[in-house]
Amino acid sequence: MKVCALAGGVGGAKLASGLQDVLSPGDLTIVVNTADDFDLWGLHICPDVDTVMYTLAGISNPETGWGIAGESFETLNMLEHFGEEAWFKLGDRDFATHVLRTSRMRSGETLTEVTARLSAALGVESAVLPMSDDPVATVLETQEGRLEFQEYFVRRGQRDEVFGIELRGIEEARPTEGVLAAISGADAIVLCPSNPVVSVRPILALPGMMEALTSSSAPKVAVSPIVGGRALKGPADRMLASLGREVSSTGVARMYEGLVDGMVIDRIDERERAGIEAIGMRVLATESVMRDAEDRARLASETLEFGAGMVAH
Amino acid sequence: MKVCALAGGVGGAKLASGLQDVLSPGDLTIVVNTADDFDLWGLHICPDVDTVMYTLAGISNPETGWGIAGESFETLNMLEHFGEEAWFKLGDRDFATHVLRTSRMRSGETLTEVTARLSAALGVESAVLPMSDDPVATVLETQEGRLEFQEYFVRRGQRDEVFGIELRGIEEARPTEGVLAAISGADAIVLCPSNPVVSVRPILALPGMMEALTSSSAPKVAVSPIVGGRALKGPADRMLASLGREVSSTGVARMYEGLVDGMVIDRIDERERAGIEAIGMRVLATESVMRDAEDRARLASETLEFGAGMVAH
Repeated sequence: MKVCALAGGVGGAKLASGLQDVLSPGDLTIVVNTADDFDLWGLHICPDVDTVMYTLAGISNPETGWGIAGESFETLNMLEHFGEEAWFKLGDRDFATHVLRTSRMRSGETLTEVTARLSAALGVESAVLPMSDDPVATVLETQEGRLEFQEYFVRRGQRDEVFGIELRGIEEARPTEGVLAAISGADAIVLCPSNPVVSVRPILALPGMMEALTSSSAPKVAVSPIVGGRALKGPADRMLASLGREVSSTGVARMYEGLVDGMVIDRIDERERAGIEAIGMRVLATESVMRDAEDRARLASETLEFGAGMVAH
Repeated sequence: MKVCALAGGVGGAKLASGLQDVLSPGDLTIVVNTADDFDLWGLHICPDVDTVMYTLAGISNPETGWGIAGESFETLNMLEHFGEEAWFKLGDRDFATHVLRTSRMRSGETLTEVTARLSAALGVESAVLPMSDDPVATVLETQEGRLEFQEYFVRRGQRDEVFGIELRGIEEARPTEGVLAAISGADAIVLCPSNPVVSVRPILALPGMMEALTSSSAPKVAVSPIVGGRALKGPADRMLASLGREVSSTGVARMYEGLVDGMVIDRIDERERAGIEAIGMRVLATESVMRDAEDRARLASETLEFGAGMVAH
């Protein structure tokens, strides 16, 4: 059973690792948001791709969800000693990823090729596919003016209210051939519990992407990142609110209307079932908080069964 | 008393640190060879500049002479894990130097500007000046064919016989304004005990450099890197031999003929005095092996007094 998952960073990576655990090796492809990629000290950094890659390799930092477990920060400390601002916490081993990726891309390799090489070296059995090899940058409109995504997300600690989101470059960007092939060949498509506006939406907004997804007859299931009116991680709840959207699984479902066949929501949001079904989606209410590997595998399993059940109907 | 020293890597850096210790803060300028600079993973690496900078900052590794004391190698180990060859031993803190330098140079800063910034951040009181802001690359002719310098020096461990040396780019390269100003303003010029053919010669071979040096009326003293027919460090002895030159302080003196007024040689080479004086240079025979900071300061002091004595005559 071939599964194609769309994911952003930490939350998406968790479900992706659950999917990897319950599927046969090689049956999972994760299409990862690259709209928060940026350059720092001339190094090309892909936070979501790396979070997914490290998580699937089993080396991610369990405390933070991003970065590598047991990292040291000698390079970053030295950069600080040189007078640089060290707001983006790059570990020493993480630096190797960025140094090598940047070097390979300067030599003409695509982000897709570099990611495949790095993932393979880390023993990742699934295909980690950047959504595009073309640059897309998320720019946020806030009361402080326009902020680059990592400026908002890391440097300023998500403290600004977001009133608008621009995906710079999205019109010229295209999903890769590999991404399109993974979608058309999938028996199930899973939208991971990632931020719907800054993680999943950039993937969906790529020209040709919605057509590719809606052309597929595979069941499409989204796992809500909102539980009890709050984002499990990150600023999705505040973003949805400041963007004038409902901060609930129903609000997320509305954003995926016309695309998704079923929503996986948390048991504590059972009361939203009728509202989501009214949008035309099936609902699975279950324990959706992933605290450990067992939770991830169980939620992945239930999500896949939920999708398979919709096909049977 | 303003002193301008010409230096390569480890041996030159040692004497430079001795000179820094005995001079007033700010009175020392070190013009450093850049002909062994190279790029690795897209990072611009300046081995001699960094060795001098780290040594003058008091953070160099006393075991190796290069690199930073107490370094960790997490980034390099990870690059190896990614399948890269880790023949050039870049430490984690050292990586910060290369990352920042490369980034600044890509933004338009010169190597001279970047070096000044990094040196200042490390608290170096002397001026560390790359010999040129223009690229020069040392290419060695060996029985294995033509080898890039670091390929020969580090990757192949100096095991090849060197039959010829090309300084690629030297005709188009120029000493910087700062280098020329340091030379013309110097009260003494010191050629450090660095490899005469691959460390000092690239500096001297820069168009305009010999004219600048010979225009200066300051005493010019060279400290021989050959003691008892052997190089204290590195392959200078074998290189001189395979290039058909005499492996002795006299051989080094001949290479500096017409430029240098006095040679500092080791006491054990006292018998070479007459031969070197016959070339037209004064000779100081002393303990020239620098084992510790005291040795460095003493040798620096004696070298400067030797030079000053020549002016008095």
